[in-house]
Amino acid sequence: MAHQVFEKTIRIHFGDCDPAGIVYHPTYYVLLNKFHEDYLHEVLKVGFIEIRRFGVGFPVVGVHTDFVSPSRPGEDVTARLWIEKLGTSSVKFAFTISKGDELRLRCVETMVCVRLDTEGNFVSSPIPDEIRARMMPYVCEDGDERLTFRS
Amino acid sequence: MAHQVFEKTIRIHFGDCDPAGIVYHPTYYVLLNKFHEDYLHEVLKVGFIEIRRFGVGFPVVGVHTDFVSPSRPGEDVTARLWIEKLGTSSVKFAFTISKGDELRLRCVETMVCVRLDTEGNFVSSPIPDEIRARMMPYVCEDGDERLTFRS
Amino acid sequence: MAHQVFEKTIRIHFGDCDPAGIVYHPTYYVLLNKFHEDYLHEVLKVGFIEIRRFGVGFPVVGVHTDFVSPSRPGEDVTARLWIEKLGTSSVKFAFTISKGDELRLRCVETMVCVRLDTEGNFVSSPIPDEIRARMMPYVCEDGDERLTFRS
Amino acid sequence: MAHQVFEKTIRIHFGDCDPAGIVYHPTYYVLLNKFHEDYLHEVLKVGFIEIRRFGVGFPVVGVHTDFVSPSRPGEDVTARLWIEKLGTSSVKFAFTISKGDELRLRCVETMVCVRLDTEGNFVSSPIPDEIRARMMPYVCEDGDERLTFRS
Repeated sequence: MAHQVFEKTIRIHFGDCDPAGIVYHPTYYVLLNKFHEDYLHEVLKVGFIEIRRFGVGFPVVGVHTDFVSPSRPGEDVTARLWIEKLGTSSVKFAFTISKGDELRLRCVETMVCVRLDTEGNFVSSPIPDEIRARMMPYVCEDGDERLTFRS
Repeated sequence: MAHQVFEKTIRIHFGDCDPAGIVYHPTYYVLLNKFHEDYLHEVLKVGFIEIRRFGVGFPVVGVHTDFVSPSRPGEDVTARLWIEKLGTSSVKFAFTISKGDELRLRCVETMVCVRLDTEGNFVSSPIPDEIRARMMPYVCEDGDERLTFRS
Repeated sequence: MAHQVFEKTIRIHFGDCDPAGIVYHPTYYVLLNKFHEDYLHEVLKVGFIEIRRFGVGFPVVGVHTDFVSPSRPGEDVTARLWIEKLGTSSVKFAFTISKGDELRLRCVETMVCVRLDTEGNFVSSPIPDEIRARMMPYVCEDGDERLTFRS
Repeated sequence: MAHQVFEKTIRIHFGDCDPAGIVYHPTYYVLLNKFHEDYLHEVLKVGFIEIRRFGVGFPVVGVHTDFVSPSRPGEDVTARLWIEKLGTSSVKFAFTISKGDELRLRCVETMVCVRLDTEGNFVSSPIPDEIRARMMPYVCEDGDERLTFRS
């Protein structure tokens, strides 16, 4: 892939897992959200809430996931993130978690840039240019590489 | 709708919410999974693991969600569940969470029935007839009523 | 006991439990905190943050717990709460979780009433009289009934 | 201190925090439990469940904590662990979390070594010698250095 991929190793812990001995699926979203935040922090230099500096926040508004095969306590898995679609005020982030060649999950999360309007409601807002520029190297809008879901 | 819908009131708590003051999206999956388990327990008379009685388990293998509008601490929201598609060994459950007329989220979770093969791997297995019969009243396979996702 | 006890039934769910098949101990604190919040909401008529109405919040500053015997998925356990010590700006809440006669855990949580000072730090503040009055029936300061811990 | 201390940096994430903008106290126990497991894994070379190799498990049976000052999203804090008391079948682990010189929490967790008896109940069991030997460098039984709690 010509684009960049953000990547980290994640240790699966005992408490991440349920009585079946595999990662409890809601806990995968905690792990992915922390990894997502690390990308924002380390690459985009922002947090999920950036009211003071930019007047905006970045809630997750949609999630699509296949849990392909289970992960177990003590495993070190690899999380990867890139951008499938960069719109004016929304971004589709692609995530995978793998153990070597074995895919554990694929996921797309849609994040929007919002600001508070005068009545206190969240309304979508263009992604600030400075942040958009830092996203660009991670964008891969080639349809052939898009994650496809079986469920 | 002619089919049955399983429904409960869920209290949103302080600790379900993040520094933006709204439900942290991974926590929604904890709330939905508990609600899902209550349906299995109260209607299907099974748990997520039924090794002893039926030799099977019911992992969630896929999730698709739109977070439509945020929920806040102290709110009592209504969770609803029905079945969008009942296959031989898999089931698509539809979920909504609403506050009165306001939709908070829509979600489809795909659950499969699996058994352990002789090498210790999970393989898909037909849903036991006794459990399938209890699912029937909740099935709505009318395509027009299917949940559609924007993200 | 002459004093009142706040009591609820809590269903133990699959996802509350770890690969040992018993409640994961950090999850007990989520269950207890929701139960604690229900008491604040239903009896004291306040939330953990009451900046607008009273200018105060109620963080938990200390916890002491014995996990006496394990709880398992599908069990309905009984949570109980009363007040061991009501100070000027702090309260010691006693909690137990039991299944019939079998004690599962005993816990004391110390909550303080704080306000923000002019430099943005939390400082302790007297519990507002209106809230203190609603706490009174739940106070049991008899030393002989105090929970004692083995660990 | 003459004894060894196990130490890691932990990043505080957005989703670790509650609507007050500080770490939700039940989430501290998730963070501490993962750190505790890293110590078992990296130093003691065991997990919380060691049925196959040693026939034992290591549940946490008691917790005592002071939450001294709050932690916020984006902070890198330092977690430390040592052993306050090493008994025949139980261990008291001391934990602190700090940011530079500022203490955020102190905690003691009591872990016991258990095996399953013939009726399927957990009963305490001597800590295997091989594991005990790896614990020894982390033991500090000097009473003057013992963590003391205000709540």
